[in-house]
Amino acid sequence: MTGRPTVVVIGAGFAGLAACRELVSAPVDIVLVDRHNFSTFQPLLYQVATGGLNPGDIAYPVRSYVRKHPNLTFRQETVTAVDTESGKVEIADGELISFDYLIVAVGAATNYFGVPGAAESARAIYTMEDAVAVRDKLARSIERASSRGVQPGELTVVIVGGGATGVEMAGALAEMRRMQLATTYEGISASDVRVVLVEQQDRLLAPFAERLSAYAATALSQRGVEVRCDESVAEVTPEHVVLKSGEVIECGLVLWAAGVGPCSLAQALDVPKVKGRLAVDEDLRVSGHDNVFAIGDVAAAAATAPLPQLAQPAIQGGQHAAKQIRLLLASQPTQPFRYHDKGIMATIGRRSAVAEIFLGIKLKGTLAWMAWLGLHIVFLLGVRNRLSVILNWAWRYLSWRRVGRVIVGN
Amino acid sequence: MTGRPTVVVIGAGFAGLAACRELVSAPVDIVLVDRHNFSTFQPLLYQVATGGLNPGDIAYPVRSYVRKHPNLTFRQETVTAVDTESGKVEIADGELISFDYLIVAVGAATNYFGVPGAAESARAIYTMEDAVAVRDKLARSIERASSRGVQPGELTVVIVGGGATGVEMAGALAEMRRMQLATTYEGISASDVRVVLVEQQDRLLAPFAERLSAYAATALSQRGVEVRCDESVAEVTPEHVVLKSGEVIECGLVLWAAGVGPCSLAQALDVPKVKGRLAVDEDLRVSGHDNVFAIGDVAAAAATAPLPQLAQPAIQGGQHAAKQIRLLLASQPTQPFRYHDKGIMATIGRRSAVAEIFLGIKLKGTLAWMAWLGLHIVFLLGVRNRLSVILNWAWRYLSWRRVGRVIVGN
Repeated sequence: MTGRPTVVVIGAGFAGLAACRELVSAPVDIVLVDRHNFSTFQPLLYQVATGGLNPGDIAYPVRSYVRKHPNLTFRQETVTAVDTESGKVEIADGELISFDYLIVAVGAATNYFGVPGAAESARAIYTMEDAVAVRDKLARSIERASSRGVQPGELTVVIVGGGATGVEMAGALAEMRRMQLATTYEGISASDVRVVLVEQQDRLLAPFAERLSAYAATALSQRGVEVRCDESVAEVTPEHVVLKSGEVIECGLVLWAAGVGPCSLAQALDVPKVKGRLAVDEDLRVSGHDNVFAIGDVAAAAATAPLPQLAQPAIQGGQHAAKQIRLLLASQPTQPFRYHDKGIMATIGRRSAVAEIFLGIKLKGTLAWMAWLGLHIVFLLGVRNRLSVILNWAWRYLSWRRVGRVIVGN
Repeated sequence: MTGRPTVVVIGAGFAGLAACRELVSAPVDIVLVDRHNFSTFQPLLYQVATGGLNPGDIAYPVRSYVRKHPNLTFRQETVTAVDTESGKVEIADGELISFDYLIVAVGAATNYFGVPGAAESARAIYTMEDAVAVRDKLARSIERASSRGVQPGELTVVIVGGGATGVEMAGALAEMRRMQLATTYEGISASDVRVVLVEQQDRLLAPFAERLSAYAATALSQRGVEVRCDESVAEVTPEHVVLKSGEVIECGLVLWAAGVGPCSLAQALDVPKVKGRLAVDEDLRVSGHDNVFAIGDVAAAAATAPLPQLAQPAIQGGQHAAKQIRLLLASQPTQPFRYHDKGIMATIGRRSAVAEIFLGIKLKGTLAWMAWLGLHIVFLLGVRNRLSVILNWAWRYLSWRRVGRVIVGN
């Protein structure tokens, strides 16, 4: 309508918002489309799942950002199809949105790797809905056990996947058990609660240095988490998990943190794929397409190893894609994407974390924990959210309490 | 089990918790039963409904209180029946809990007064689920209107009932319109949004002095609320409301704040009723029963005018019932309940409220608003909740923003 080219960005996560931030100063009209009207700060989802933070604390209202930029329009819609030939995106009611450039940043879906029963009986913690559902299920189990007596296995949680998500979730559950359950719920003792962490590889946190992996395993074990490396899950049912070794663990909750795969929109796209992710060239354009970029969890480089599915690659990818659009508009050649690894970190609990940051510096314990706290506060979007998270963390740290807050069905 | 008498308290609202607070120092075992494991601060539900506060901010985890008192047990259960003869309460799975004394504090349900379509199409804001559902419906309508264009009536809200709840809701929606909608959502202008407040009597806030009612009506009108006194609702459909005068108002949301009536448990109880509420004698015992008390919204005095359905009568009733149990245990005669009216207040918006407090002092405007803020902070349960609400209010006051935070399905 303005005569300027239209860039449609699908997905308001780390990648999509980073692209928008770079594009708002470009001579384009941007249409940002997302199913939700908030952006989820996924690194803290596990704290929502364990009742330490409110959903609102880590949900940033997209409108707060959009309204500051006249060339950015937001539409809360579900994208049902993409026609890369004619340059149109279809939303729920059949309406078509035309684009000159498209940035696909829709994230991923949980990948159950075909383990029987996993899709039906295990729970993911990839979206806000996932986290809230886990929180409510946990709280209901605990209340039921306290009111009616603990059934065998009822309060056993099996976490599948010893990456950052699995480790952080295990640490948070272990802390919940130590700090809260036995003191707050009559009829429940710490020994009624088991947390089992299953990892296929021979160590936790495979992307970290070995001594940090060892530290994490020891820290979790000291907190009472049963760490099972070199082990995997053969089957999941509503009542138990069968491990490859044949061991059967009765449990009330199976959390699936073993990896993510393509979401349905990505699966439906008629473009080249790498293990279900959209195959991108060096400049992050989808292979064979001049005006379609894919960034974040949904994308994978065709030529090199896929990037880790973390916030940093998503943010950097978003910035890069936006810059390429600026170059293309100026009829200049695109540039290859170079990921600058700013480090990785995972928290285990109170004053315990691991981090590998710039220059190969490796941290563990209190220092890593403080770095983790600081960085998560800095990267959280929205001043109100930051203050609210600081308040909740300070409160919990000082009071050693974390009472599950069930907002039923919420 | 301890040989001490058991007091069962059904309901963890203002009334039930006040009773527990008085009983924890008595030689009794208390079993507190509630469907939820949190206590809702109902006076601020309208702020959850309008996206100004998170549900967690006004939900106080019952366990936080219960765990400090060894003679108090909490059970998150739904009570399905009460047998006052044999002294037993039945919970969901058929389990029976025996009591020596029973305190019924289950609150009320929305009363649609038989208006056709109201129960199906209007929404209440009496429980946390109600408030969250209203918030999500509002946010979805606004997003849809912004994305697809405003349909006639889509953003019209009709509020039925000009008591404190209706006035506060109308004020909050008016502020949302002024502060947020036009600046935040493209395609929506303030004139697309109508807020209509319908009151059967000839003035709003009937329990307040006339000049405060007049102030409230003027303040709301200045904020663009259409106030219709001497008017009532004849029919509600999903698309419109028909007023008694014959006027038809197309609308997207009907909020029912016209009154509360008996909940299903109260209806099922085989005891004398006053307009559906459990009839109580002077000492708050249910008429004809020696060991059963009813307090809060579920109760009504058989002999005198029913008390307003507010926090103060509930709290005072809870304290009184608990004291009567102490007297009965000491074989002393019970005392009649005297309600000490500590005043009433309602907020309209930024620096605008009405209050009638001790000694008949009537306040309006900024002073009343500050009194309202202060009292609500003081009475909110839990230090963390207080801090969080102060943070949110300060943020909103300073930034003039209140961006709806949709946690879909939450």
